[in-house]
Amino acid sequence: MSEFDLIRRHFAEATPARADVPLGIGDDCALLQPPPGVCLAVSMDTLVEGQHFFAGADPTDLGHKALAVNLSDLAAVGAEPAWATLSVTLPQANSDWLGGFMRGFAALAAVHRVQLVGGDTTRGPLSITIQLHGFVEPDKALRRAGGRPGDRVCVSGTLGDAGLALQCLQRDAGGQGVSDALRGRLHRPVPRVDLGRLLRGQASAAIDVSDGLLADLGHICESSGVGAVIELGRLPMSALVAAEAARGNWEFSLAGGDDYELLFTVDPARAAALLQTCRGAGHAVQEIGYLAADRDIRLVYPDGQVKKEAPRGFDHFKV
Amino acid sequence: MSEFDLIRRHFAEATPARADVPLGIGDDCALLQPPPGVCLAVSMDTLVEGQHFFAGADPTDLGHKALAVNLSDLAAVGAEPAWATLSVTLPQANSDWLGGFMRGFAALAAVHRVQLVGGDTTRGPLSITIQLHGFVEPDKALRRAGGRPGDRVCVSGTLGDAGLALQCLQRDAGGQGVSDALRGRLHRPVPRVDLGRLLRGQASAAIDVSDGLLADLGHICESSGVGAVIELGRLPMSALVAAEAARGNWEFSLAGGDDYELLFTVDPARAAALLQTCRGAGHAVQEIGYLAADRDIRLVYPDGQVKKEAPRGFDHFKV
Repeated sequence: MSEFDLIRRHFAEATPARADVPLGIGDDCALLQPPPGVCLAVSMDTLVEGQHFFAGADPTDLGHKALAVNLSDLAAVGAEPAWATLSVTLPQANSDWLGGFMRGFAALAAVHRVQLVGGDTTRGPLSITIQLHGFVEPDKALRRAGGRPGDRVCVSGTLGDAGLALQCLQRDAGGQGVSDALRGRLHRPVPRVDLGRLLRGQASAAIDVSDGLLADLGHICESSGVGAVIELGRLPMSALVAAEAARGNWEFSLAGGDDYELLFTVDPARAAALLQTCRGAGHAVQEIGYLAADRDIRLVYPDGQVKKEAPRGFDHFKV
Repeated sequence: MSEFDLIRRHFAEATPARADVPLGIGDDCALLQPPPGVCLAVSMDTLVEGQHFFAGADPTDLGHKALAVNLSDLAAVGAEPAWATLSVTLPQANSDWLGGFMRGFAALAAVHRVQLVGGDTTRGPLSITIQLHGFVEPDKALRRAGGRPGDRVCVSGTLGDAGLALQCLQRDAGGQGVSDALRGRLHRPVPRVDLGRLLRGQASAAIDVSDGLLADLGHICESSGVGAVIELGRLPMSALVAAEAARGNWEFSLAGGDDYELLFTVDPARAAALLQTCRGAGHAVQEIGYLAADRDIRLVYPDGQVKKEAPRGFDHFKV
C-alpha cells in the first residue's frame, strides 16, 4: 500500500467536515477560513515512543492522548478548538496501528468538532506531532502573565492520578493491579476545554497542569512576576493520591505531571462568583491558595509548617 | 541547562517579530491575528534522520531545508508566508546543534518575514517537524485540481539536480567529487515563493515538485481528472543532468525528487503572457507539454518515440 492510500484510508474522512475548511487533506496546503475578529490560538505537541509513552502502547489510547494534550493547551487560553494537523512517523506502514490511532483521535475530535485538515506521514522511530488551531477573542484570551498579588489560585479536577498510575504501571509491567479508572487518568486525559471557555475574560492567568502543579504554578508566577502560597490541605486529590499524601508523600499531587487540569488565578473580589459559575456548569474546581507579592512559592502543610519550594516538574532536557 | 533555557536561548528571538503575533513563544498557545478576508494556508512536513537526511548532516543546512520544504508548499498554493511552528526531537540537549539549526532556519525565515511562534522540544531520535502558515485570497489560491485538457504544463528552474546530488553523495561518502553548486541544490533548495505569488489567479493548477516530476504531475492529473503529454526535449536541465539524459537516463529529471520547483498549468490563451510576466520578474520558467483529455501520461522522447508512463516517485511507505 502506498503512502497516499494510507492517508486516504485513515485520515481524509475520519473527522467532522467543517464549513470553514475550503480545502482539507490532499493538496500542498490546507486552506482554512478563520472567522472575523478572533485570534488564532495554536499549540503543537510531540509524543515520542519511550519518552512520552511505553513501547507497545495501545494506539487508540495514543490517538486520544495526542489530541487531548493539545486540546488542553487550547483550554488553557480559553480557545474554541477547530482544526488539527497530524504528522505520524512509523517504523513501517501499519494500517492496523494507524486505524487504531485514528479511532482514538477521531472519537475525541468529534466531541470537540475538530477537523483533521493536513499533516505528514513518514517512516522512522514512532512519534506523533499534532498541531491544534482554535479561536479566541483577543481581549479574552487567558495567559500565564496577568496574575496579581492577592489573586486566588484555583485548580480543576484532582491532581496526581496520572503520575501515580505511571508509577504503578512502571512497577507492575502487566498493570494487573492498576484500576481502569486510574489507568484512564494517564492514558485518556479529559481536556478541560469547556472550563477554559468559561474562564475567558474572568481568570487573571491560566495554564494547564502538564508538568506538575509546582512547575506550572512556577510558570504563572514567573510570567506574572509574583509568588504564591499554596495550602496543601486544600489540594483536590483522589483517595489513592490522598493516601500517599497522608503518608507524607506529596510528589504525585505536586509534581506528578500529565494531569491536564486547569490551574488559574482570579481577582479575590470575583473568585467566589466564578467558582460558583464553574460548579454550576458541572466543573469540579477548588481554591488552593493565593498569589503573593514576593517571588517565592510557599507550601503550607496540613500541620501548619510552611516550606519554600522551587518550581520543578518534568523537563525533557534537564541535564 | 533546562528545556526552557534552550527554548529561550535559541528560539524566542531568532526570527523577525511580526505585528500580527499578539503572543509568541512561551505560553500554552501562540495567539495569531490573521488579516481579514484571506484564507490561512498551512503546510506540515517532518524530516527524519536516516530517511530525509544523512546522520551527521550539517544542522545549518537542515534548518534551511526544513523551512524551505514548507515554504515550497506555500509557494504551490500562492500563499504569502507568515508564521512557523517547530518541533525538534533530539537525542540529547545539544546547544551547538540547535544553534546551528536555528542559524539556517532564521536566515531563510528573515528572507520571507516568517516568525517562529511556537512548537515543542523533546528527547528522542532526531527529527524535525515544521508547520508553516501563510495567507492567500480564497479565490486566487492555486490547487492541484483545476487543470483542463489543452492547458500548457510549465515548470520553473531545472529538474533532477537534487536527485543527482543525492546519488553522488551516496556513492562518494565524503562527497569530494560533488560540486558545491550541485550539493546546494540538495541541501539548500530555494523555495519559489515569489513565483507562486505571481501565479495566483493565473495558473489553472499548481504543485511543488518534491517527489519528482512524474509523481507530482500525476497528482495534478489525478486531482484534475486529466492526462498529460510531456516533451522530454523541453525539460529544463542543468548540464550534468542533461548529460545523463543524453545517455538515455531520464530518472533524475523525471523522478529525482527534492527539486522544489513549481509545476503549473495554464490556459493556452494565457500561457505566453504568463510566462513572459514570470521571466520579466526574473523567474526561469519553461513550457514542457500540455494536459490531455484521456487519463494517461505520455512522454515524447527527443527521437520522437512516445511512451506511456505510470506516475512514480518517492513514497515513504511504498511496500
